[in-house]
Amino acid sequence: MTGPETLVIGVVQHPCHERPAENLELATAGIRKAAERGARLVVLPELHGHRYFCQTEDPAHFDLAEPVPGPTTEALAAEARRCRVTVVGSVFERRAPGLHHNTAVILDRDGALSGTYRKMHIPDDPGYYEKFYFVPGDQGFVPIDTSLGRIGVMVCWDQWYPEAARLMTLAGAEILLFPSAIGWDTADDLPERQRQLDSWITIQRGHAIANGVPVVCANRVGTEPASADGVARTIQFWGSSFGCGPQGEILWRAGDAPTLGMVEIDRPRTEQVRRVWPFLRDRRIDAYAGLDRRYGAPATVPPED
Amino acid sequence: MTGPETLVIGVVQHPCHERPAENLELATAGIRKAAERGARLVVLPELHGHRYFCQTEDPAHFDLAEPVPGPTTEALAAEARRCRVTVVGSVFERRAPGLHHNTAVILDRDGALSGTYRKMHIPDDPGYYEKFYFVPGDQGFVPIDTSLGRIGVMVCWDQWYPEAARLMTLAGAEILLFPSAIGWDTADDLPERQRQLDSWITIQRGHAIANGVPVVCANRVGTEPASADGVARTIQFWGSSFGCGPQGEILWRAGDAPTLGMVEIDRPRTEQVRRVWPFLRDRRIDAYAGLDRRYGAPATVPPED
Repeated sequence: MTGPETLVIGVVQHPCHERPAENLELATAGIRKAAERGARLVVLPELHGHRYFCQTEDPAHFDLAEPVPGPTTEALAAEARRCRVTVVGSVFERRAPGLHHNTAVILDRDGALSGTYRKMHIPDDPGYYEKFYFVPGDQGFVPIDTSLGRIGVMVCWDQWYPEAARLMTLAGAEILLFPSAIGWDTADDLPERQRQLDSWITIQRGHAIANGVPVVCANRVGTEPASADGVARTIQFWGSSFGCGPQGEILWRAGDAPTLGMVEIDRPRTEQVRRVWPFLRDRRIDAYAGLDRRYGAPATVPPED
Repeated sequence: MTGPETLVIGVVQHPCHERPAENLELATAGIRKAAERGARLVVLPELHGHRYFCQTEDPAHFDLAEPVPGPTTEALAAEARRCRVTVVGSVFERRAPGLHHNTAVILDRDGALSGTYRKMHIPDDPGYYEKFYFVPGDQGFVPIDTSLGRIGVMVCWDQWYPEAARLMTLAGAEILLFPSAIGWDTADDLPERQRQLDSWITIQRGHAIANGVPVVCANRVGTEPASADGVARTIQFWGSSFGCGPQGEILWRAGDAPTLGMVEIDRPRTEQVRRVWPFLRDRRIDAYAGLDRRYGAPATVPPED
């Protein structure tokens, strides 16, 4: 373990507006405030520089992409260096002509780019047309080494996949972070919305529990309107950013307003919890081969006695 | 899908006493009552025929084991046939001399043994010395075909492993069932007990969400005392059996008293939920190879651009 025993993480839950400069100001102001309040690490929401452009499939939106490192990375790096905090940001990455990613960038407190994570699981659902924009990541589930230790950064849709959290943990991640942009389709009724929000928090708490690691999630907030042509549906980003400990116990949780959360991670507790709930000990690695299959039932006949 | 659109599952949450005959009576009475109330499937707690003998490592306890099929399987089969319900029971299985399993038995409503599941993940912790008694299962994560459809039965400690739930789902399980025997060490303080119980429910709800399937868990209840020699610690089995739908939404949950729960599973809902939350669609099977490794960080250097 590197860094302080109590790791204070700032979570910037902010809305995203039409003007990118305004969004960058929200992000950098959040970093500054979090650092002033004692954060050593600050997490921003997914694609915090822009309106959630994946509401429609529009080739013009590729103009929003930028290289990594590039302007957003450099602005975040400057703020990280200025405030002496590690920053997890999110960039619409132009890797090559016709090849774009949804990429998390990790800037250490000296402003150096510690690493990137390119979103591995890409959704494609009404209002979230991400497969049009993003090539799935090809870096795998590789945590990033920083001055604060080894950090497992993933992005939004990855949060529904226990495989992702497990692989990050097996690669030594001490904490899992999820920049996110998820919300309600306002056509859904209230009980359905509640189930969706609950399931989103629950599955991420489940990753904390299964792997014995803290999980912190920074979600976007605010309503982004339907397009005039009716193709884009209004999304009410549900906020509810949170942090939980290695038993999935909620440490902090936001509502649906812009906010800055401070999550205190008691890092030695991870070791304590894992001693009493040693799930990594009993994994049946001899019996997990089927996990890299798309689908399929093995023979249902038990072995002969 | 086979069987009724609304599948009613009876969950028998009962304590286990010193005399096996008394426990069998609790199990069969529970099956009868559940059937009278309309259950088509009844789930019993883990190792419901006995006190939780794994509180100590005592060679004499192997006398409690029996073959499958054997007396318990046959008694449950008779009750299943009599009540025309499918029954999931749990047996301390003597497979061969010196070779014992913690085995779930699935009896169909005609009394036939549809299949068995031998607990794959075996714990070994203070008060839960299961590795002394049980050889880990060698059948893999294979669901059982019944007149009600394909049922994914696992046992207790398996419930902490997302890999297990995923493999059952990929093999076609339409619902996941967990006979369990888990409780508090009465030496733990109340906040710790609450965290443990919450994490246990949360991770199972997480399996429902990740896989888009209902989950039903039948836990033992009651306090089983410490041994006179102080080796066995008192366990207060926490009950809290529950059923949830494919979004992890709680359908029914017990407290810590003996009870019979009736869980109504709306089976077509699984299909609806999976259409809107299609997690199986986006799995990165090309990137999951590391899941059958014990531990290890891949290279942290991203691919060259």
